Amino acid sequence: MCNSVGGAVLWQNALCRVVEVEDENYAGFCRVILNRHAREMADLEDGERRALMDVVFAVERAVRDTMHPDKMNLASLGNMSPHVHWHVIPRYRDDRHFPGPVWAAAQREAPVPPERRSRARGLGEAIAAQLKDFGR
Amino acid sequence: MCNSVGGAVLWQNALCRVVEVEDENYAGFCRVILNRHAREMADLEDGERRALMDVVFAVERAVRDTMHPDKMNLASLGNMSPHVHWHVIPRYRDDRHFPGPVWAAAQREAPVPPERRSRARGLGEAIAAQLKDFGR
Repeated sequence: MCNSVGGAVLWQNALCRVVEVEDENYAGFCRVILNRHAREMADLEDGERRALMDVVFAVERAVRDTMHPDKMNLASLGNMSPHVHWHVIPRYRDDRHFPGPVWAAAQREAPVPPERRSRARGLGEAIAAQLKDFGR
Repeated sequence: MCNSVGGAVLWQNALCRVVEVEDENYAGFCRVILNRHAREMADLEDGERRALMDVVFAVERAVRDTMHPDKMNLASLGNMSPHVHWHVIPRYRDDRHFPGPVWAAAQREAPVPPERRSRARGLGEAIAAQLKDFGR
């Protein structure tokens, strides 16, 4: 994550980038990735941390408004890639892992309905609208 | 979570409470639970959301400083309990699920080392110190 983009970039500024995660089981799954290398949120100073979280929550709103999920999931784990990034995941009662987290055992086979793939195509615009007042 | 405390309370104010999660596989696992009922972070207004996250990140720092984990994990999921709460989890290379999230399949049997249980007893004090300037 330090040296590769990490997915299709939907938005970026000097602080971070928002990428759409390619996942055959989830449409509208985004990641917000800090551009500079830091290991933990606790390593960020207050202003940087708040600015990053403002982006994360703007993406959460854009994903919710665009994807109409049953629940939103947010997580910063980084056990395998210890570089600060946030997962922003729209969840549905009929998705592959619900009500478990997407990292838990699958509950069912659940190909993404075409209408969700279609909605996800509006994400870039929705995120840009939520973040229009942020510096690029 | 609306009507029960949800664990041993380490700290609380009018906005939220910090509880220690009883988990035989994890010491120092905390939850930050919004007192009022809200379903998603996106339902909070900006000031409330920032205040809650300031508590979450203060708890993250206290847990890191007290527990000396290999990685910190933060997550707000709520698929089963759709009431805003955050998991703050100290992770270790030798814990039950590492490098997977704690919700993934277990990688090994991993009883908590007594020294980690012992450290966790300092959490209440460490969290209070991080939050000493917050209103109660």
